[in-house]
Amino acid sequence: MSIETRSEHVCFDGMMGFYAHQSQTTGTDMRFAVFMPPQAKQGPVPALYFLAGLTCTEETFMMKAGAQRLAATLGLALIACDTSPRGLNLPGEDDDWDFGSGAGFYLDATAEPWAANYRMGTYVNKELPALIEANFAVRAGLRGIAGHSMGGHGALVSALRNPGLWQSVSALAPISNPVAVPWGEKAFTNYLGTDRTTWAEWDASLLMRAKPFPGPILVDQGLADQFLTRELHPEALEQAAAASGQQLTLRRHEGYDHSYWFIQTVMTDHLNWHAERLRAA
Amino acid sequence: MSIETRSEHVCFDGMMGFYAHQSQTTGTDMRFAVFMPPQAKQGPVPALYFLAGLTCTEETFMMKAGAQRLAATLGLALIACDTSPRGLNLPGEDDDWDFGSGAGFYLDATAEPWAANYRMGTYVNKELPALIEANFAVRAGLRGIAGHSMGGHGALVSALRNPGLWQSVSALAPISNPVAVPWGEKAFTNYLGTDRTTWAEWDASLLMRAKPFPGPILVDQGLADQFLTRELHPEALEQAAAASGQQLTLRRHEGYDHSYWFIQTVMTDHLNWHAERLRAA
Repeated sequence: MSIETRSEHVCFDGMMGFYAHQSQTTGTDMRFAVFMPPQAKQGPVPALYFLAGLTCTEETFMMKAGAQRLAATLGLALIACDTSPRGLNLPGEDDDWDFGSGAGFYLDATAEPWAANYRMGTYVNKELPALIEANFAVRAGLRGIAGHSMGGHGALVSALRNPGLWQSVSALAPISNPVAVPWGEKAFTNYLGTDRTTWAEWDASLLMRAKPFPGPILVDQGLADQFLTRELHPEALEQAAAASGQQLTLRRHEGYDHSYWFIQTVMTDHLNWHAERLRAA
Repeated sequence: MSIETRSEHVCFDGMMGFYAHQSQTTGTDMRFAVFMPPQAKQGPVPALYFLAGLTCTEETFMMKAGAQRLAATLGLALIACDTSPRGLNLPGEDDDWDFGSGAGFYLDATAEPWAANYRMGTYVNKELPALIEANFAVRAGLRGIAGHSMGGHGALVSALRNPGLWQSVSALAPISNPVAVPWGEKAFTNYLGTDRTTWAEWDASLLMRAKPFPGPILVDQGLADQFLTRELHPEALEQAAAASGQQLTLRRHEGYDHSYWFIQTVMTDHLNWHAERLRAA
């Protein structure tokens, strides 16, 4: 598991690094970014994994969320990966901004031609944490996961499917119930096939309804979000939480849209949320 | 002076906006960005203008510096403009990353074919503040100016040439003595012509040596900055300050490079520096 360092920059007395490695899961080079807080010089620290949304890369969260300042105070490592494999030249891979490259949906595809490589579910929940924990001063077993939009959904699904792996979870403006919205129907049809009964394994609201995550979940949603009514449906999470007894804090914010200007605004709460739970874990 | 709103986003209970207007100074459309803190809803606030470096746009500082969080606490408006006129189709305008588009050097060109449009000195020190003060809830007469690299130099030169206009000034990794370094020689030769005696009017160290700014200046510089020894020469500012009695705090930071990861790290100090001086002004 050799890692290529693309660039490293001292930042808040920690280290902001951009890396690549050959992924066994996707069969491609995968890029990722790691912010190590200064506390890591003294010993391993907990880590928060952040999954970005459609069209984003491993750089987006690191550049736009303004998270490093507080992470350097809290002693929290930040990990971000790309949003899909890239460069496979599969038919249709680069045709749409909401499918294929930049739109892996953090699931394991089962339909062709995606099944061999579009395995972001396994990548995020197995290969990436193993890679990080073998190569950076992070504490194995103290992992939080968060994300935005498609990545907010990916964080919820990752935690609900792998509750032993993740000790804390939160989401910002997540796609909440993909089987019922256009982005999700398009992605799931292509990645998972037309048999909708298989889709439930990768839908956050359906997973939550079947079995809650063994801890509270924080979700923030802007009410001026241009995708709210068509794609996001946070009320599906509330209904699922009510049905299964999931502890869920869903906050709605007047005036805020889907952008990283909203993410910046609530990032402090999310970092504190994870740091508090990872300290107690 | 009509303003086109390109996008507006609620951010930290304030407003992050991206705008354009037809500039009389440059004869082109110019884009700019404004962050208004929530305090501006109650009444006009002081403003910090930030000048970005080579290749940057009006978006760079707003997206990468992480300044909004603290500006929203301090009640400080943030203003950023583009780094040159664009789209003029002048010969050579888009050939090099360090000259022409994205590299206006915040001066008023006198040589052809640049003299009619490349007038960023007047744009930043006259048209832009007037535009902002006529259209946003900022307090006329409470203006700070800061910048990075080419923009750090632009901030120093703006303040030294127009001490009544700017009440506070700071710079991050500025080009300090452009007449003596490759970036500056290339820009000044093309924008100002080959008569070097005219260059002194636009060189921060020469201006400071001739007459200090009537207030202290803060400069931060990373010691792992890849441009430090070839292009930046902060020691020229120290020598000029010693000669003229300029109050100058020049801080050197081990390990930090020229990137916005460094800027993020010291941004808190710069915002506090300006807020403190603008409160007292």
